[in-house]
Amino acid sequence: MPRYQLTLEYDGSPYAGWQRQENGLAVQEVLETAGASLTGGPAVAMAAGRTDSGVHALAMGAHIDLAKALPPDRVRDGLNAMLRPHPITVLSANLCTDDFHARFSCTGRRYLYRVLSRRAPPALDRTRVWHVSAPLHLGHMQEAALALLGRHDFTTFRSSLCQSQSPVKTLDRIHIETAAGDEVHFSVAAQSFLHNQVRSIVGTLVQVGHGRWPVSRVAEALAARSRAACGPVAPAHGLYFAAAIYDPPTDDF
Amino acid sequence: MPRYQLTLEYDGSPYAGWQRQENGLAVQEVLETAGASLTGGPAVAMAAGRTDSGVHALAMGAHIDLAKALPPDRVRDGLNAMLRPHPITVLSANLCTDDFHARFSCTGRRYLYRVLSRRAPPALDRTRVWHVSAPLHLGHMQEAALALLGRHDFTTFRSSLCQSQSPVKTLDRIHIETAAGDEVHFSVAAQSFLHNQVRSIVGTLVQVGHGRWPVSRVAEALAARSRAACGPVAPAHGLYFAAAIYDPPTDDF
Repeated sequence: MPRYQLTLEYDGSPYAGWQRQENGLAVQEVLETAGASLTGGPAVAMAAGRTDSGVHALAMGAHIDLAKALPPDRVRDGLNAMLRPHPITVLSANLCTDDFHARFSCTGRRYLYRVLSRRAPPALDRTRVWHVSAPLHLGHMQEAALALLGRHDFTTFRSSLCQSQSPVKTLDRIHIETAAGDEVHFSVAAQSFLHNQVRSIVGTLVQVGHGRWPVSRVAEALAARSRAACGPVAPAHGLYFAAAIYDPPTDDF
Repeated sequence: MPRYQLTLEYDGSPYAGWQRQENGLAVQEVLETAGASLTGGPAVAMAAGRTDSGVHALAMGAHIDLAKALPPDRVRDGLNAMLRPHPITVLSANLCTDDFHARFSCTGRRYLYRVLSRRAPPALDRTRVWHVSAPLHLGHMQEAALALLGRHDFTTFRSSLCQSQSPVKTLDRIHIETAAGDEVHFSVAAQSFLHNQVRSIVGTLVQVGHGRWPVSRVAEALAARSRAACGPVAPAHGLYFAAAIYDPPTDDF
């Protein structure tokens, strides 16, 4: 089956997450159904990240195996036509070899977390930002985040449902900045993440931003290697899968 | 009745526009109902602009007369509580005199129009941007827009339903720029606008951007003073009321 590398944008609100499952409609299932409709044969799709229900994607890395070879532009436009009216769109499609795997070939993942920090609740972005009405101290959050950079045992910031074999991950970047008026954006990068790691980190840092936690408590929480030491997990609807990094194809591609 | 100056954000998608009417629910009606629930008496609301169905507001200027005097923060928070689950939010509320009128005291209005210019349809902003899949030439649109700046008879760019006594308006600014990756933003400012003027102008300039119209045709269309000379009107859901300007209160306020 020919394989196509895809970049996807989706609104996670109506879905049970990326991964096909029994309880509710998943993005993977909708995409595979669109692929099957396009070619009249089976279609199998994989993604760089298995986003939870409500989590959005600005640019999810994915691939799809189709029953029939088609020009890549035809795959993009055809899938988009079949995906209607779902809020899932194929931004790009390129033919690739079977060596490429959206998940296992991915060498870097980036997430964006959007917090709306103001008194009034969101009207336009209700399902797109986490609304916090108490003020946030940016400098304190930035200082606390430094403790999380680098290679650590992130057991504290890991869901009890996490299937990763090891809790050790390397966090390459946490950039926290104000944006678009009343928003605070958390941009987080790593080769890979534990389940709920970004939401656990953001929820914990917001405790610091509100002044409920001292800056030093984040390093202590990390060192505790205990889920009980984590702050409240930030809600899914503020999180966006922002980029999947792949090494350039080798010469024999 | 005490009067409060309000700034509102709303998602126009579910409403028949700002103004109360028989066919469908209007933002004005929802706000007045919230005001009545808050005080137990009648409430009357006015806005700087009567947005059409589907048009959004980032910061609509408005006022509301309430049956009972309340601290301004209580008005803001109380209205927001009563507005739930409507996608309408009160960003700010301030006590003002009866001399202030959200529409008649407004000395400047700003609109934002968002166009998504890419092959793939929007997933996250489906009801928030106008999607055009053919490329747009920014320089040509900017050049054509110059002809519209200043004081003109805008009959060409006016809805047949427009109730304004005169078609003469002064356009203070049309700024066209790329934004957020694949978007083109039109920022338009004037003291006041004709009905559908912004959408008519954007729809016409996009004809130029696509290369379907030469740059010079926009000046010719304006000079024609004929609705028939206008390009296709851009859809409502890309338009945002962005700001209402009010002169500072005088000393005796």
